[in-house]
Amino acid sequence: MKVVIVGGVAGGASAAARIRRLDESAEIIVFEKTGYISYANCGLPYYIGDVITDSSDLSLQTPESFWTRFRILVKVNHEVTNIDVTQKTVTVKNLLTGTECEEPYDKLLLSPGAKPVRPNLSGIDSEKIFSLRTIEDTFRIHDYLEKTKAQSAVIVGGGYIGIEVAENLKEKGLNVTIVQRPNQLMNTLDYDMASFVHSKLRAKGISLRLNSNVTSFRQDGECIVTLLEDNSEIAADMVLLAIGVAPENSLAKQAGLKLGVKGSIVVNDRMETSVQDIYAVGDAIQVKHFVTEEDTVIALAGPANKQGRIAADNICGGDSHYQGSMGSSIIKIFDMTVAGTGLTEKVAKSMGIDCESVVLSPASHAGYYPGAKVMTMKVVFEKDTWKLLGAQIVGTEGVDKRLDVLATAMHAGMKANMLKDLDLAYAPPFSSAKDPVNMAGFMIENIRNGFVKQYHWDEIAGLPRDGSVTLLDTRTAYEYKSGHIDGYINIPVDDLRERMNEIDDSKPVYVICQSGLRSYIACRILTQNGFDCYNFSGGYRFYASVIHEKQMSECTYPCGMEK
Amino acid sequence: MKVVIVGGVAGGASAAARIRRLDESAEIIVFEKTGYISYANCGLPYYIGDVITDSSDLSLQTPESFWTRFRILVKVNHEVTNIDVTQKTVTVKNLLTGTECEEPYDKLLLSPGAKPVRPNLSGIDSEKIFSLRTIEDTFRIHDYLEKTKAQSAVIVGGGYIGIEVAENLKEKGLNVTIVQRPNQLMNTLDYDMASFVHSKLRAKGISLRLNSNVTSFRQDGECIVTLLEDNSEIAADMVLLAIGVAPENSLAKQAGLKLGVKGSIVVNDRMETSVQDIYAVGDAIQVKHFVTEEDTVIALAGPANKQGRIAADNICGGDSHYQGSMGSSIIKIFDMTVAGTGLTEKVAKSMGIDCESVVLSPASHAGYYPGAKVMTMKVVFEKDTWKLLGAQIVGTEGVDKRLDVLATAMHAGMKANMLKDLDLAYAPPFSSAKDPVNMAGFMIENIRNGFVKQYHWDEIAGLPRDGSVTLLDTRTAYEYKSGHIDGYINIPVDDLRERMNEIDDSKPVYVICQSGLRSYIACRILTQNGFDCYNFSGGYRFYASVIHEKQMSECTYPCGMEK
Repeated sequence: MKVVIVGGVAGGASAAARIRRLDESAEIIVFEKTGYISYANCGLPYYIGDVITDSSDLSLQTPESFWTRFRILVKVNHEVTNIDVTQKTVTVKNLLTGTECEEPYDKLLLSPGAKPVRPNLSGIDSEKIFSLRTIEDTFRIHDYLEKTKAQSAVIVGGGYIGIEVAENLKEKGLNVTIVQRPNQLMNTLDYDMASFVHSKLRAKGISLRLNSNVTSFRQDGECIVTLLEDNSEIAADMVLLAIGVAPENSLAKQAGLKLGVKGSIVVNDRMETSVQDIYAVGDAIQVKHFVTEEDTVIALAGPANKQGRIAADNICGGDSHYQGSMGSSIIKIFDMTVAGTGLTEKVAKSMGIDCESVVLSPASHAGYYPGAKVMTMKVVFEKDTWKLLGAQIVGTEGVDKRLDVLATAMHAGMKANMLKDLDLAYAPPFSSAKDPVNMAGFMIENIRNGFVKQYHWDEIAGLPRDGSVTLLDTRTAYEYKSGHIDGYINIPVDDLRERMNEIDDSKPVYVICQSGLRSYIACRILTQNGFDCYNFSGGYRFYASVIHEKQMSECTYPCGMEK
Repeated sequence: MKVVIVGGVAGGASAAARIRRLDESAEIIVFEKTGYISYANCGLPYYIGDVITDSSDLSLQTPESFWTRFRILVKVNHEVTNIDVTQKTVTVKNLLTGTECEEPYDKLLLSPGAKPVRPNLSGIDSEKIFSLRTIEDTFRIHDYLEKTKAQSAVIVGGGYIGIEVAENLKEKGLNVTIVQRPNQLMNTLDYDMASFVHSKLRAKGISLRLNSNVTSFRQDGECIVTLLEDNSEIAADMVLLAIGVAPENSLAKQAGLKLGVKGSIVVNDRMETSVQDIYAVGDAIQVKHFVTEEDTVIALAGPANKQGRIAADNICGGDSHYQGSMGSSIIKIFDMTVAGTGLTEKVAKSMGIDCESVVLSPASHAGYYPGAKVMTMKVVFEKDTWKLLGAQIVGTEGVDKRLDVLATAMHAGMKANMLKDLDLAYAPPFSSAKDPVNMAGFMIENIRNGFVKQYHWDEIAGLPRDGSVTLLDTRTAYEYKSGHIDGYINIPVDDLRERMNEIDDSKPVYVICQSGLRSYIACRILTQNGFDCYNFSGGYRFYASVIHEKQMSECTYPCGMEK
């Protein structure tokens, strides 16, 4: 059997090694367009920031090591330009010499990845505008920074790559502005959770231009000027385009393979394309979303590696199936960790799913043991079915753990309220006797049992201030004085039983406290005394963070280098 | 409704607060034998070690705060001495005044906890022999250390409390010896995994006396001398007895409640005892093991808190059910983290379960990102059914995360081989594209598919050295020279295809490498060439660690202060 693999990074490299482990006699050839294989895409921003200092660390394998260990022939700087599905051959171009040859295959695996989106804007071909996808891109940016001693950068796009490069450039001392078309960074988060990201980036001195559309670029002496739709301009020494990636589908298109969402390559759960003996994996393919079971594109390294292994199994006569992606992802942003999995509330609602969420602010470990840090966790679930739809967490320590526990629970099909039953490991340095994930389960179970009803941050502005409802803040008098929402009266929870006569029991009561716990207790007291009660989801801490960032975002020139 | 609760720590305090949240009109009285409620059992060793310095941090609530917020009457220093199940009253003794009174109840919740086991040994009543269960115990030890400037301690018992106190005393500068009757510390680990704990403790200068049975104690001037069965003696300034706990069942026994394993209180999954209107939770009760569904006793804070909440629900007319414990637990040992859940291989085998395990040594996060640390992970599963039975991990960073993911997968009933499919969050600072848990799943799937057969550390000594089998080390020549197992020949994996003729294909081949990956590749090469092959589980790294510690343990006086 002769196997030809197009693309030697995550999915392609995984598949190649696995095919060899399953079949010593197969002939395996990998064609990689760039000069490197099996490289660490996700590490590239950190080489730019000198966190990873040895460039050889960026490649996990070389063509030589792949040959030595696996007898896999890897040809870098070779681009497959054509597939003849009838003859079962590919045309390969040596990008260094320009020569072309034909290569026959019995099985063909496409792992071409994705390409950075480059909008057709005036001035976009400036050599001061970069994108980051390959090791070559990385070296190009790194060299440019070294040579020009660049002092400032504009990052267009506030997803993972954009934010990671922004952090790394800021840590190198550059002035950094992120320009983002939507009203928030990171579309893997809901707006409310993204506000913590905005806050962190601003605190670190990174300028954010949200709701901002780039219209063109202009070279101005040594500067590259980014022009925005509101006619403002941002001059900087370099621009990174990081507005997302699109499936690399040119080869698949040429070969007549069926394409799907966003032009991705359609595969079944055995990684088979629409044409026999051609498989595809990684960022180029369409996958089933694990939660919604809808077709989507999820460009992440974890799924690509798993898919490579599954394709290899099937190429070698096995029968392995991909279960779909739920888009679990995580990012370090300075000292903060931000992670998400499954659907955001926004996406769930846009799909017409009747969903609800809980927001909590647990400590990473027992408060009495030194070093505990608060995280903010949002768990989204479907009403009535209590199906777990997704989760988002921002914080520092322990965020990755809770996200992976929630992703595992989702993968296993656990109901949201069953999170309360998980038997997680507790000792004071690591968690609390009631782990944050258990706490989320308790909260969801309380909603399920009708013990508490919630209201949310985006409802507060619309609550009547005409006396037809009671707005009640149950924090201490000191906390209340330090900052509260207009229209809320203050009765500390511990005084509530004595002072209940101050509240009109014929009107709904909207309760808030700092984190949501005391207001929940207040709601229970009031509910049992006949009040119609609503507990604010996330507490004043959460509300204040979201609203503060909303105000910052709406301010046109918050800070930075704008002209 | 009047609810009387016996015991105001984890389970009792949780239940009391939950009952109030569910029922504003209930009368709730908590009787606590010690002077403190809702205290942080798991934090006590860290107060002794001055990691937690403020004693008020040890109590999460006070009787005053419980009254203020919940209108729960808490009486500390009050012991319930008798239950009259017919009259539905309890007899309560004020331990400060000695007075007694009767207290009627509608519902009674027992949360008496467990008591440290004190063997009936000569000399055990010395004031220099301590145990650690309550805040009072903690202060007693802390004060003793302050006053006597103790320089040395013997810890009898190498479970969680013993090891945590050993660490804290060592960090204070004391010479510490742990005396343990079995041949290993921590019965939540298999012997092989415990060897990493032994190694860490020895490296930190703590003396271990394994396989050592204490026969008596003797005061000798200012010293307390611990006498062992082999007639050796260890003199020290103090002794901590930490050989385990037994359910506090005196009240239950007196009241005629049905008792179970180790004298624990029998409850159903609603936390109801054998007598109507009496509930029990926490360390005193018998639980169903989540994995085996057998009756057992698991004294941990997490389950106690969950049980308290469930009892409260049912006391208030709800219908909540406890799902059983799987004993997920974790401990910090200096800079090491050790965690386990479910069954050890040893226990599984002793129960007659036909089980297998994989051992792997993955990095905590991507190797190319700074700071990655190796962990050792063992996952135990049932043959044929592929049911996950348990997991153990030792390492530093990221151990807690993987353990909780595995515990969640077990709780959800996932098959061991399905761990490969989990969609966990990856970025270089947090994990690898193939997370350690995925890797375990890949390994198990390879066993399931018959791609690889394993052999284990305890089989190596018994492998014939008479030429009837080939023992093959596939590491580099340099690694082989640096240390290898007698009888193993060296063919580096990368040379194996050329040098295969050096191996007799009529004999079984037992392969080893450093971590298990290269030997797996070698096994695949050999298997496909007709060899009968076995891959060593865990690699030479694991073998060397286990064997080294085994030798150390068998040496009678490894180090320390023995006479």
